[in-house]
Amino acid sequence: MTQIVPVILCGGSGTRLWPRSRASKPKPFLPLIGERTIFEETLARCAPFSGPIVVTGAAHLPHVEAQLGTIDAAIVVEPKARNTAAAIALAALRLPEDAVMLVCPSDHHIGDPTAFAEAARKAAALASEGWMVSFGIEATAPETGYGYLKRGEPLDNCGFRTAQFVEKPDLERAKGFLVEGGYDWNGGIFAFQVGRFLGELEAHAPGIAGPVREAVTNGHEQGRLFHPDADAFGKAESISVDYAVMEKTGQAALVPARMDWSDIGSWESLHMARDKDADGNSVRGKAELVDCRNVLVESDGPRVSVIGLEGVVVVVDGDEVLVTSMDGAQKVGKLDGAANQ
Amino acid sequence: MTQIVPVILCGGSGTRLWPRSRASKPKPFLPLIGERTIFEETLARCAPFSGPIVVTGAAHLPHVEAQLGTIDAAIVVEPKARNTAAAIALAALRLPEDAVMLVCPSDHHIGDPTAFAEAARKAAALASEGWMVSFGIEATAPETGYGYLKRGEPLDNCGFRTAQFVEKPDLERAKGFLVEGGYDWNGGIFAFQVGRFLGELEAHAPGIAGPVREAVTNGHEQGRLFHPDADAFGKAESISVDYAVMEKTGQAALVPARMDWSDIGSWESLHMARDKDADGNSVRGKAELVDCRNVLVESDGPRVSVIGLEGVVVVVDGDEVLVTSMDGAQKVGKLDGAANQ
Repeated sequence: MTQIVPVILCGGSGTRLWPRSRASKPKPFLPLIGERTIFEETLARCAPFSGPIVVTGAAHLPHVEAQLGTIDAAIVVEPKARNTAAAIALAALRLPEDAVMLVCPSDHHIGDPTAFAEAARKAAALASEGWMVSFGIEATAPETGYGYLKRGEPLDNCGFRTAQFVEKPDLERAKGFLVEGGYDWNGGIFAFQVGRFLGELEAHAPGIAGPVREAVTNGHEQGRLFHPDADAFGKAESISVDYAVMEKTGQAALVPARMDWSDIGSWESLHMARDKDADGNSVRGKAELVDCRNVLVESDGPRVSVIGLEGVVVVVDGDEVLVTSMDGAQKVGKLDGAANQ
Repeated sequence: MTQIVPVILCGGSGTRLWPRSRASKPKPFLPLIGERTIFEETLARCAPFSGPIVVTGAAHLPHVEAQLGTIDAAIVVEPKARNTAAAIALAALRLPEDAVMLVCPSDHHIGDPTAFAEAARKAAALASEGWMVSFGIEATAPETGYGYLKRGEPLDNCGFRTAQFVEKPDLERAKGFLVEGGYDWNGGIFAFQVGRFLGELEAHAPGIAGPVREAVTNGHEQGRLFHPDADAFGKAESISVDYAVMEKTGQAALVPARMDWSDIGSWESLHMARDKDADGNSVRGKAELVDCRNVLVESDGPRVSVIGLEGVVVVVDGDEVLVTSMDGAQKVGKLDGAANQ
């Protein structure tokens, strides 16, 4: 039976969830939805598979090690951030050629882990046949912030050939996809057979494959940590795996995944993912709400009293207070505070 | 020439400006509009007249003494709060019979102190003829939170006989007053000749006059402080001067005062009284506003970032954060935090 190895990518800054998410403790390491952090949730839903490889930077390493607890994981420490293609390549070069990598971002919420595991098994089955597999997230709204995957011919009752990769569309086009049907969101979750992935990378992105291979060859181990060579890794092109490989391979496939997914990409989407009371309010910390609907309150200490508001987010975190409309939540990352942490 | 003695009433809790206004440091002692506190503003606009008498409770005494600075004032310390009629009677019994008391709340903002002084001189002129004079505040909106004064026959080019006292009307009636004209708001500012006031009080409110007279007779001085006898004062009825005297006297008059008055009765009215930028926003403390209109921000420390809101108040004060719509600001006093300070 094929070995399925979760490759958990722990990069990302989560500035749109500022001020709760800070450079010093970003989004994956915060308990944003339940009692566990998003990284801990990711580990838990990968538990049915082999011990994971976590790819992360030195800055996040203390959080990763603290939250891994007793989980038997290998950790690859990126000398610097070089986007997803290089990060996945680092993991690939530490694994047997016939293993299947289950590539998971560590900053997504998945409400139905069982559905995730089922989709992962289907994706792994296709991957071990040589397909380069994306998870297709159900497109429930005409989002313009995601890429879309167009389904092609069915494959073995497991998924579909990917007929087309569509970069972030405009609203008109996104609406068209929903009407037309057969489109999924590209959620950045993948299954690749290790040897196949490395072959595709050599073919389509030699500017990544070469430097990363050198970085691993010249790297060194330190307990469960592996440190690739920094100079070599720094020469790798910084491109996403979508651009570097998926849009170029002739073997792209997708597995539809209906698993209550959220990328928690803003306070609005966090609010949607959280449990709410009858008025649609979700509260963490000390708060009193009067005449409020669809309000999110999050406080790390001070009491927050809110009166007569609808569709508003209030976040109190240390020396920062954020108050935004749900629409405005998209602009949080551009605030002075979020930009200059 | 008649001596005009400001009688400054320093009671009140200002719970509708919570959490900035707290039981331990209420509204009059905060710099809510300009750089001076509301109490300091009150003292400054009374400077053209005699040294004032301040009537206050023991709890506020430290703030009163600190903010009086070098002003030559007498202070009467109320043993307990017994509403305005008894408070004014305390001051009256410490003054010569022929002086005119200019009774001023210490928690109002008056943007035009010159107009105030002019109105005060007219009111004093009528008072020294024996009239019991209210200041008539220009009714600029159909407010239901104020009493109204109906103008009667003109008096000496100074003011009008008060034809009727109207308690807080409903909205329909308040709108009618504005259409009809000839109505002013009752702002709780008065001019009384001391002897006349005491005579009216004896006649209409013996349950106040007797106990307060006894409290003053049995009181004691302590430097510039005067302490009325607590047992006697406690027996005085707790009624406003409007109910106790003004609505009963046959000698009620009013002087129209157009002086940019605000009772700063809520965060909304504070926002109206403050200077604002081109988008109608007013900010105190560290803040960043994006796509905001008509927003008030007040912070005693943390930075406040606001995105995409209109007509919202954000107040950060120590361990409390308040976020309210302008309409909701009326309910601030009923919040748990404000009610249980």
